[in-house]
Amino acid sequence: MSAPPAALPPHGGDLAAATARWGRPAGDWLDLSTGINPTPYPLPSLPDWAWSHLPGRAAEAALDTAARQALAVPDTAALIAASGGQALIQQLPWLRSPGPVTILAPTYDEHRRAWAAAGHQVQGATDPATADPTGVLVLVNPNNPDGRIFDRASLVALAARFAAQGGLVVIDEAFADPYPDQSLCPLAPRGGVILRSFGKFYGLAGLRLGLAVTAETTLAEALRARLGPWAVSGPALAIGNAAYADSAWAEATRQALVAASSRLDAVLTGAGFERIGGTVLFTLVRHPKAREWWERLGQQGILVRAFAEQSDWLRFGLPGSTADWNRLEQALTSVQ
Amino acid sequence: MSAPPAALPPHGGDLAAATARWGRPAGDWLDLSTGINPTPYPLPSLPDWAWSHLPGRAAEAALDTAARQALAVPDTAALIAASGGQALIQQLPWLRSPGPVTILAPTYDEHRRAWAAAGHQVQGATDPATADPTGVLVLVNPNNPDGRIFDRASLVALAARFAAQGGLVVIDEAFADPYPDQSLCPLAPRGGVILRSFGKFYGLAGLRLGLAVTAETTLAEALRARLGPWAVSGPALAIGNAAYADSAWAEATRQALVAASSRLDAVLTGAGFERIGGTVLFTLVRHPKAREWWERLGQQGILVRAFAEQSDWLRFGLPGSTADWNRLEQALTSVQ
Repeated sequence: MSAPPAALPPHGGDLAAATARWGRPAGDWLDLSTGINPTPYPLPSLPDWAWSHLPGRAAEAALDTAARQALAVPDTAALIAASGGQALIQQLPWLRSPGPVTILAPTYDEHRRAWAAAGHQVQGATDPATADPTGVLVLVNPNNPDGRIFDRASLVALAARFAAQGGLVVIDEAFADPYPDQSLCPLAPRGGVILRSFGKFYGLAGLRLGLAVTAETTLAEALRARLGPWAVSGPALAIGNAAYADSAWAEATRQALVAASSRLDAVLTGAGFERIGGTVLFTLVRHPKAREWWERLGQQGILVRAFAEQSDWLRFGLPGSTADWNRLEQALTSVQ
Repeated sequence: MSAPPAALPPHGGDLAAATARWGRPAGDWLDLSTGINPTPYPLPSLPDWAWSHLPGRAAEAALDTAARQALAVPDTAALIAASGGQALIQQLPWLRSPGPVTILAPTYDEHRRAWAAAGHQVQGATDPATADPTGVLVLVNPNNPDGRIFDRASLVALAARFAAQGGLVVIDEAFADPYPDQSLCPLAPRGGVILRSFGKFYGLAGLRLGLAVTAETTLAEALRARLGPWAVSGPALAIGNAAYADSAWAEATRQALVAASSRLDAVLTGAGFERIGGTVLFTLVRHPKAREWWERLGQQGILVRAFAEQSDWLRFGLPGSTADWNRLEQALTSVQ
C-alpha cells in the first residue's frame, strides 16, 4: 500500500498530481497539504489602476510603508518586494560566486535546489555552528516542517560572525507572521537577509507576494536590479498594502490560529498520531503507518503532505470550514 | 521651458514622477505615456483558488493551452509564462556567457539595461545584418516607439543564421497582438526566442503576465529553471486563460484599435504634429517644440512620453473614454 518515495510530489498543494493519482476532480479536494491559512484576508475592492496600469511607484511606496510598519523593519534596512517568496529564493543564489552553502535540514527543499542550480556546494546540517562563515547559511525560522525555532540572539550573533568573514545568513521567515516576537525583521542584522512570504498567513498564496529585508545594501541593490521594474502586480500591491496595514486582523488571526492549531493537534493525537512539531499553520506528526494514512486520506479526497525521506512523517494544514473539520475528523476515525 | 533630458523619466506610466513635477494628484492624470489599450479585457469573476491557493499545474496548463491557441504556437516550441514580459527580459541575459549583443535602436531601453547588467558587450544598430551571429541580436517587432516592422521571412533567415553559429535572436513582440500576421510565434524558428506581453493589448498591465516562445529547448529549460515554480499569479493565470481563449474579443479589439489610432493620428496631425511612426496602440510624432508640448500637456494633467535623446519626438497612447478624447483635443487646440 505504501507509495514509493519517488512518487511523492515535491511540494504540498499539487492537486493536479493528487487528481491524477486518486482520480477525483480538483474541486472535490480538501487540501491540507500546505501551511496556508484557510481563512484568508478579506479581499478589498481593487481600484481599476491595480489591473490596468503598470504598477506605479506610489503603490510600491505604499506597500513598502505598510510592510515596514507591520514587520517593524528599521529604516536602516532595505525592503525588496517580489512576486512571491519563491522569486527571491530563485534569485538570491545568483548574487554570490559559487561557494559553500549550508542548509539546516530537513526543510523546504527549494533552497537546496536554487543554490545547487547556481553552482554552489550545498550541504545539509542540523547545527548552524558547523557552517562555514565565509559562505552561506540558510535556515527557515520557524522551520518547515518541524517548527524548530532559532533563538533571536543566537541568530544575530551568527549573522555577525558571517558578516565579519564575508558570509551571509539567509533566514526564511515564511511562517513567522504568527510569531512576531521571533522575527529578525526588527533587528535586520548585518550579514543577514530575511525572506517573508505574504500568502501563507494572509491565506492568499495565489497572489504571489514576498519580501526580502536586509541591512546589506550591496546585496539589496543587486537583488532589486535582478528583479527589475514592475516586479509585483497591481493587485498584490493593493491587497498587500491593505493587509499589512490591518494590525487588528493580524492580531485576531494570530489568536484564531492558536485555537485552530490546538484543535488540529487534538484531532490528530486522538487518532493515534504523535505530534513531533509544527507551527500554528501546520502540524507535523509521526505514525508507523504514515504512508498508508496518506494513501487512505487521499482516497477520501483529503490531501496531506508526505515526505520522501521520512516515511513515518505526515504534515497536516488547518481545515477551515466546519464541513472541512468534520470531513477530516470523520476520515480519521472511520478508517482506523 | 524645455526639461533637461536628465529629468525625463526612463519609462512611460510614471505618474509619481509626473505628480512630483507638476503637482497634480495621481487620480487626476490622463496618462497617455504608455502603449496600453485603454479599454481592457473585461475582468471575469475569479474563482477563490486564484487568490487563496498556490497556482496549480492545472491552471498553468490551461493558460498554456489558451495562449498556444491564441498565438498559434506549434507543439515543437516551448511556451514559458512569467510575471510580465519584463521578468523575461530580466532573466534572459543571464542564460548566456557574456558576449556581443546588438540591439536594434532606438527601442525599449530595458533590453540594453538587462544585457549590460549581465556583463554583455551591448551595441546599438539599425541594420540587423551588421550583428555578430555568434552573439545575440535583440529587436522589438513592431518596434517601440517608431513602429518599425521586420519582415517575417527575413527574421526566420536571420534566426537560422544565428542558430548556425551559436547565436540567438530575441524578438520582443510586446506590441504584436494587433498584427497576428506579423508574429513569429506560429513559426517559432530555431535560433529565436519570442517575448510576448499580455498587459498591453489586453489593457491589464497591472496583472503582470508575459510569455516566451522558443524552439530552443535548452534555453527554454534554463529559463523555466530560473523562474522557478509558481512564477505566475493565480489571477494572471485565470484572466490570461479567459482572455487568450476569447478570439472574438481579440478580433473586435483589433478593429477598434485601428479606428481609435486613426482618430488619434488625425487629432495630432490637426494640431501640427508630424506622424513618424507607431502602432495602433501608440503614435510617434515629431514637432520642433516637442519638449514645450510635453511641458504644457503635463501642466494640464496629460502625460505623454518624451525621449531623452530625440528632443523633437513625443509618443502618444490612446485615450479611452469620450471625456479623455475631449480633454486631449481641447488641450491640443487651446494652448497653441
